[in-house]
Amino acid sequence: MRMTRLFLRTLRDDPADAEVPSHKLLVRAGYVRRVAPGVYSWLPLGLKVLAKVERIIREEMDEIGAQEVRFPALLPREPYEATNRWTEYGPNLFRLKDRKGNDMLLGPTHEEMFTLLVKDLYSSYKDLPLSLYQIQTKYRDEARPRAGILRGREFIMKDSYSFDVDDAGLEAAYQAHRAAYVRIFDRLGFEYVIVKADSGAMGGSASEEFLAVSPTGEDTFVRSPGGYSANVEAVTTVAPDPVPYDGIPAAHAEQTPDTPTIDSLVDHLNAAFPRDDRSWEAGDTLKNVLVILRHPDGTREPLAIGLPGDREVDAKRLETQVAPAEVEPFEQKDFAAHPGLVKGYIGPGALGSESTTGIRYLTDPRIVDGTRWVTGADVQGSHVIDLVAGRDFTSDGTIEAAEVRAGDPAPDGSGPLELARGIEMGHIFQLGRKYAEVLDLKVLDQNGKLVTVTMGSYGVGVSRAVAAVAEYAHDESGLVWPRELAPFDVHLIVAGKDETVVAGAEQVYADLVGEGFDVLFDDRLGKVSPGVKFKDAELIGVPTIVVVGKGFVDGVVEVKDRSTGERRDVPLVDLVTALRD
Amino acid sequence: MRMTRLFLRTLRDDPADAEVPSHKLLVRAGYVRRVAPGVYSWLPLGLKVLAKVERIIREEMDEIGAQEVRFPALLPREPYEATNRWTEYGPNLFRLKDRKGNDMLLGPTHEEMFTLLVKDLYSSYKDLPLSLYQIQTKYRDEARPRAGILRGREFIMKDSYSFDVDDAGLEAAYQAHRAAYVRIFDRLGFEYVIVKADSGAMGGSASEEFLAVSPTGEDTFVRSPGGYSANVEAVTTVAPDPVPYDGIPAAHAEQTPDTPTIDSLVDHLNAAFPRDDRSWEAGDTLKNVLVILRHPDGTREPLAIGLPGDREVDAKRLETQVAPAEVEPFEQKDFAAHPGLVKGYIGPGALGSESTTGIRYLTDPRIVDGTRWVTGADVQGSHVIDLVAGRDFTSDGTIEAAEVRAGDPAPDGSGPLELARGIEMGHIFQLGRKYAEVLDLKVLDQNGKLVTVTMGSYGVGVSRAVAAVAEYAHDESGLVWPRELAPFDVHLIVAGKDETVVAGAEQVYADLVGEGFDVLFDDRLGKVSPGVKFKDAELIGVPTIVVVGKGFVDGVVEVKDRSTGERRDVPLVDLVTALRD
Repeated sequence: MRMTRLFLRTLRDDPADAEVPSHKLLVRAGYVRRVAPGVYSWLPLGLKVLAKVERIIREEMDEIGAQEVRFPALLPREPYEATNRWTEYGPNLFRLKDRKGNDMLLGPTHEEMFTLLVKDLYSSYKDLPLSLYQIQTKYRDEARPRAGILRGREFIMKDSYSFDVDDAGLEAAYQAHRAAYVRIFDRLGFEYVIVKADSGAMGGSASEEFLAVSPTGEDTFVRSPGGYSANVEAVTTVAPDPVPYDGIPAAHAEQTPDTPTIDSLVDHLNAAFPRDDRSWEAGDTLKNVLVILRHPDGTREPLAIGLPGDREVDAKRLETQVAPAEVEPFEQKDFAAHPGLVKGYIGPGALGSESTTGIRYLTDPRIVDGTRWVTGADVQGSHVIDLVAGRDFTSDGTIEAAEVRAGDPAPDGSGPLELARGIEMGHIFQLGRKYAEVLDLKVLDQNGKLVTVTMGSYGVGVSRAVAAVAEYAHDESGLVWPRELAPFDVHLIVAGKDETVVAGAEQVYADLVGEGFDVLFDDRLGKVSPGVKFKDAELIGVPTIVVVGKGFVDGVVEVKDRSTGERRDVPLVDLVTALRD
Repeated sequence: MRMTRLFLRTLRDDPADAEVPSHKLLVRAGYVRRVAPGVYSWLPLGLKVLAKVERIIREEMDEIGAQEVRFPALLPREPYEATNRWTEYGPNLFRLKDRKGNDMLLGPTHEEMFTLLVKDLYSSYKDLPLSLYQIQTKYRDEARPRAGILRGREFIMKDSYSFDVDDAGLEAAYQAHRAAYVRIFDRLGFEYVIVKADSGAMGGSASEEFLAVSPTGEDTFVRSPGGYSANVEAVTTVAPDPVPYDGIPAAHAEQTPDTPTIDSLVDHLNAAFPRDDRSWEAGDTLKNVLVILRHPDGTREPLAIGLPGDREVDAKRLETQVAPAEVEPFEQKDFAAHPGLVKGYIGPGALGSESTTGIRYLTDPRIVDGTRWVTGADVQGSHVIDLVAGRDFTSDGTIEAAEVRAGDPAPDGSGPLELARGIEMGHIFQLGRKYAEVLDLKVLDQNGKLVTVTMGSYGVGVSRAVAAVAEYAHDESGLVWPRELAPFDVHLIVAGKDETVVAGAEQVYADLVGEGFDVLFDDRLGKVSPGVKFKDAELIGVPTIVVVGKGFVDGVVEVKDRSTGERRDVPLVDLVTALRD
C-alpha cells in the first residue's frame, strides 16, 4: 500500500474530547474516527488491526471446540422480557419500535437468544457439551461514553456460551474458556491480571475478569502478596469479631456546633472532649450517607449507608451491590420529605426501617456489635458520643459499599492489599441455570429425565482490545504495535528526491511485496519532508521502519525498530533476511 | 468437523412461513434460523458460506483499489436530516432515541457518512480518485419482510463509494466497479443480468442493477433481442406520434348502465354501439385509477392515473415514480371528500388540477394528442365516446405507471421485450454531486479553485447472495453449493456399524484432514441409518460426498458428485487425487 493512495490523514493535534493515550493516538494516527458520542468508524489502518484481533480470538475459540454463529443485533423484546432484562437494563438499553409498533432492542448481550436457539434445536444430554460463540456488534447506551473505542455505545464483542448437563461439565467448559482467554491475552501482548469478579446484574456464581493493567483503566482491582486478586467491586471486608461492651459508658449527646463535616467534628472533639488514650480520629466517627436508589421500574427508594468516618462510599462498589437499581443523589426535596433528617447531624436514631423516617439503613461490615462511635444526634449542632453498635442501635443489614484502601487485609488472609487500575477485557462467568430455568431449556438425561441445562457466559471486548493494546503499546511519539497486530509488517520511507533514491525505494518496495511482506510505502514526494515522514511512521507504529536514503548509492538502507528505537544500516542484499529475523 | 459435534439439526418440514426454495432449504439444512420477522441468525454452516461470499467480494474490491473501512450502524440524525433522507425514508427507517433524547437511526445506507468522512480528511484533487467500501450490517424496516434472508430487515451489504474531481473520473470509477461486480457475480456462480435501473430515491443519473435471474425474484426485468435490458421500473414507454383528429366526431355521452368495469363496458359498447371497422376492445377505453400518495411528512394527496383500459397500473413502477411518497388505496372516505367522482364512471372531466375536484391527473405516455377514447362521463351509468386527447381533455402530465408487457417495443428500437424475474443483487450508480453539494464536500482543483466532488455509490447484497446462490443451486433433495462457496469440501459418511468400516472411516477422515481438505464427517452411529445420512448430505449440499461402506474391506470407497448425482467407486489409494480433480 502506498501512502499516496492510503485513505489516511494523520493529525497534529489531539482530539478535543480525548483524555487517554489510546484515544488520542488512534484518532491522530488515522485508525478510527468519531461519528457520535461513543460511536466510531474504523478507517483502513484500524480495520486491519481489528481483523487481526478477531483472527486471534477466532483461532483460540475454535481451538477449544467452540462453534461460531452470528445473531442479529436487532432483537425482539419478548425473550428479554422473560428474563426481566428488558426492564433491568434501564436506560443502558437501546429500545425502539418497528413500523408495526413492536418493541425491539439492540442487543447488549445475547444470553436469552443463545438459550432459545439451543432449546430450539437440542433435546438430549447426548447433544452436550456445546460451546457457541459469535463476534458481533453490540450496543449499550452508556451514560458516559468515553475514551474513544475503549468505552463505546456501539462496540464489537466476542461472546460465547457453554451448555452442559451438569456442574462438572460447566466447570470444564469454564476452565477451557479460561485457558483460551489466557492464550488470547498472551497473544494480544498487554499486561493483564485475572481477578475475582462480582457477577453484577448477570446472576450466577463463579466469575473472573481479565483486566488489562493500565493507569487509565476504569476498573480498580486489588492484589495481595499471597496471590489474592479481585475486582474492587468483589472485595469483601474482613469484619472484626464482636467486642464486649460491658463498662462502656452510656451514650451521651453533646453540643458540637458547626461540625457538619467529619474533619470539623474531629477537630471539635479533640478541643472540647479530649480522649485520655489518644486523639480522636475520623475512624472513630460513624458517617451516615444518604442516596436514592432508582429501581428499573422507575421508583425511587432512599437508602442510608453507615460507615467509619475515615472511609468514603465507593460509587462502583455501591452500584454493584444495589444493581439493577441505579444510584442517584439524595436531593433537597428528599430531605424535605423526611423532616426527621438533620443535615450534617444524621445518626442511626433517625434511620432504619423501624425508625420514624423508615429509611433502610445498611452499615459497613466493620461496624460489629460492641464497636463504639461518635455520630449525629439528629439535632442541629449535636453529636452522640459512646454510641455502641448492638447496644444503642442496630442496622437493617450490612453492605459492601466502603472504599477499599491499600493496606486493607485480603479476605483470604493472604496479606495486605495493593490497588491498581485496569481495563476490563474479558469476563468469564458460570451463569448456572438462571437463564435455562426462565426460558425452559431442558434436555433428557441418561435416565430419560428432563434436567435443566447449566450455562456459562464468556465475553471479550474485541474493539476495546485494539484500544487496550494501544494503551499499553505506545510512547511519546505514537503507537508501537506488536508484530502480530500491526497493520503492516514494514513501513518503508523514501528519504530524498534524488532519482536514484526514488527508483531504489520503488525497487525495495516491489522486492519486499514480492517476498510476501505487507508494506506501507511512504512514497510521498514534493513538499513532504523526510522529517514529516519519520514522524508519521512513529505515530502509525508499524514495528519495522526501513529508510531508503543517501546510503542507497552504497547499497545500504536503514532499518529501525519502532519499539527499541534501535537503528542500523543493512546492506540491501541482506534486507529480506534481516526483516525475517 | 464431526457431525456428532456440529451444532446442527436438519429439519424434515419446511418452515411454515417459507415460500421460496432458498428459504425452505437454508432453514431445513440448518444454515439460518429466524429470530423475528426479517431478522435471522447464522448457524455454523451458514456463517461459513457467508464468510466465503465476503471473501470473494473483498478480493474483488481490493483488486480495483477500493479501501475497506467500517462505519457504525447506529448513526446520528443530523447528516440524514441535511439530505432529507431522515424524512424521505418514511417508515422504512428504524429510528430511536438515546438516553439523552437524541434522535438516532440504524443506517440503511451510508452515503452521508462517507461523504462527511472524506470531507473531514481530504481537501485536494491530489487526494482523488478514492474508492472506499465496507461490508457491514444494515437495517431497513421493510413493510413485507419475506423469503428468509432474501429480504430481511437486518442484512449485510457491501457498499462502496467513489470520489472524483470530474465526470470522467466518476465514469472510470463506475466502470471499474462494474467490472469488479461482473467478476464477483461470475464467481458466485448464479445466472445474472445487468439491467438499466431507475435511480429511485437516491437521486443522480446513470445506474445499473445486477439481477440474479430467478422465477422467485421480486424484480421484473425486460430484455430485447437487440440487447436492451432494464429493470421494469426503468422501462420507458414508446409514445406514438400525435395523430390528427380532424373529422373525428364530437364527443358524445351515451347511456351505459351497469358497466363499472372495463369488461362490462366493452361488452356493452359492442352490443349497443357497434363499430363498423372492428369490435371495441379494452384498449379503446381510457381507465382512470385513483390512488392516495402518502408523503414523507404524512400528508395524503389524491392522484389520478389515466391509462388504456387493457393495461393495469404496475404498483412498483408507480411507486418508483412517486417516491419518496408511498402509494395507498383510495378509500371510501376519499370518494366522500370528492363528490364529483362517480365510482366506475370517472372521466377526465372530473380530473386534473384545473377541474372541480382539483385532483392531479397524470396519463400514460400512449395517450397522445389525437388519440380517441371511451371513458367515464362522470355520471352514473354513462360513458363518453369519441373523446379525443388534446381536443376534449388534457392531463397534468404523463407518468410511467402502466404495466410493461411481453411484446412491448424496447425504447431503443431493439425489438419486442420479453419479461423475466430476478433478485436484485447489485446496484451501481453514478450519484453525481447531490450528496457532495448538500454536505459541502469540495476540494481544490489544479487551479486552486474549490470544486464539488462527484460520487458513485455501489452496493452488493452480501447476506442476500447466500440466498440467491441457494435459489439457483438446489434440487428437490436439497442445496447444491458451488465449490468456492460450500461450507465444506467433502461430506464423509460412514455407512455401517462394522468395526472395520468405522475404523476405516475414521482413518479416511484423518487422512483427508491431513491433506488439507475441510471435511464434514457424519460419524453418527447408533440409530442413525445410512439412509438418513445420505438424505442429510443431499440436503446440506457439500459438492462431494464420500461414503465408507461395505466396499472398504476391498479398499474402495464411493465418491458421489452432489451436483451431477454421478457415483463411482474409488480405490482408497486414489481418493486424494480423485478429490483434487
